[in-house]
Amino acid sequence: MATFREIGERGLVEMIRRTVLRDGSPDALTDDASVIPRGSGDLVVCTDALTFERHMPKGMTYEQLGWMAAAANVSDLASMGAKPTGLLASLNVPEDMDVRDICDIMSGIDQCAEFGETYVIGGDTKPGTGTVAVTAIGDMEGRRPMTRGCARPGDVIAVTGPLGGPAAGFRAIEAGIDLPDSVATLMAPIPRVKEGIALASTGLVSSCIDLSDGLSTCVRTICKESGVGAIIEWDLLPADEGVSVISEKLGIPEKDMLMDWGGEYELLFTFDRKDLD
Amino acid sequence: MATFREIGERGLVEMIRRTVLRDGSPDALTDDASVIPRGSGDLVVCTDALTFERHMPKGMTYEQLGWMAAAANVSDLASMGAKPTGLLASLNVPEDMDVRDICDIMSGIDQCAEFGETYVIGGDTKPGTGTVAVTAIGDMEGRRPMTRGCARPGDVIAVTGPLGGPAAGFRAIEAGIDLPDSVATLMAPIPRVKEGIALASTGLVSSCIDLSDGLSTCVRTICKESGVGAIIEWDLLPADEGVSVISEKLGIPEKDMLMDWGGEYELLFTFDRKDLD
Repeated sequence: MATFREIGERGLVEMIRRTVLRDGSPDALTDDASVIPRGSGDLVVCTDALTFERHMPKGMTYEQLGWMAAAANVSDLASMGAKPTGLLASLNVPEDMDVRDICDIMSGIDQCAEFGETYVIGGDTKPGTGTVAVTAIGDMEGRRPMTRGCARPGDVIAVTGPLGGPAAGFRAIEAGIDLPDSVATLMAPIPRVKEGIALASTGLVSSCIDLSDGLSTCVRTICKESGVGAIIEWDLLPADEGVSVISEKLGIPEKDMLMDWGGEYELLFTFDRKDLD
Repeated sequence: MATFREIGERGLVEMIRRTVLRDGSPDALTDDASVIPRGSGDLVVCTDALTFERHMPKGMTYEQLGWMAAAANVSDLASMGAKPTGLLASLNVPEDMDVRDICDIMSGIDQCAEFGETYVIGGDTKPGTGTVAVTAIGDMEGRRPMTRGCARPGDVIAVTGPLGGPAAGFRAIEAGIDLPDSVATLMAPIPRVKEGIALASTGLVSSCIDLSDGLSTCVRTICKESGVGAIIEWDLLPADEGVSVISEKLGIPEKDMLMDWGGEYELLFTFDRKDLD
């Protein structure tokens, strides 16, 4: 049979899904976050890991890596509209790593927990090549979780903020261009916790996803799960200020930075046009 | 400053605890599992990781490793008296690993989830040297979580089953002695889910811990956290049948196998002698 390298992460996840899916399994296994139904308010849980090798752009500190690992998960909660109620961190780090650097990772995770008004409530450390796995637990507090599968024809598509910052920041670092605000969106992205809670509170949102896989992939996901199509009006896309700078200086098409770059942490959501007010 | 190797896992955890402890942090960070208070029944969460290198005794299959990683966490829930409501798995596996073996790990995790009447509800896979990190979520369903800190002078100490099986099983494999039942307690330990729930349901248990760190360490932990002492009556200790076999054949003292070996999954608990009926 194939190896992990040959089949890739997506292929492996599909095989794993088939391995563990049983009668009664939650829908869980298609979303980034899973819902545990509970009388007084559903729980939402998710886990996502970053590796030193693949997820640390040049110049990223261990503190920022920790923040990023936490933010990826807190953002998954936000996309469902859940309030974070605790983070767990499972670190896999080289045995010759300085303890100060390890604590910097944890400090980054904790700062993101504090941003989300919650705490690091557990964890584990083992020797390895360098992986930071965070699990986030959230509470719907009576709101209905926003999912990806209920967008309807005619819905408006919206995002919570400007896009392209991480892409512009990455190019800026590579080319030595001074774009601190764009670099910040790459190195320390802000998960849209309050925005996600506010969106779910309206009860009017038909679907929601965070843009961590990039705009084009995420729109395709919503379309596939909801059985709809979508039109993206180029002129209406809000862009990070660094996007035009990088495009002018380096000749990189704005579209590449806005559409096809992952690591965005804005939320994309859909709703009925009549609810626009 | 020191490296991870120099300071060790316990030292590192202590440093991390100091890094992330803030006003309002749950007591969490002293127990194996953390309690998230919640009106309709507290939540309990925990995470624990096993590595291919350190936690796979000779002859262990990937399926058993998966079961073991899940069981370690389900057992932590059991020691608080929580009913499992979901497992998440974060795998860190070599890129040249056969996908079938990876799915075997997940199958083992899922079988333990099924044993605990719950499901695998999320996960993540990344390349690395081989770590299986499981996060377990449990529900107290209105019961009060059993902790380690409330044993009282005069309490009886009890365990849910015979001890020494994993130690005897390990020695049996090494020496080529046929002791399948003891080997099973090593390779596929049974977390005491129903027992933990039943114990918490009585409301009479003053402290509880799973024996994954071994009897002597765990009794010391209970004593330290509760501010009490303890007497272990050697003649009353229930022993796995393999313990005397190994002791006779290999000359290993029974005490070593019963007292100082980790990887036991029975629960140890304390209660007032007057509640013995």
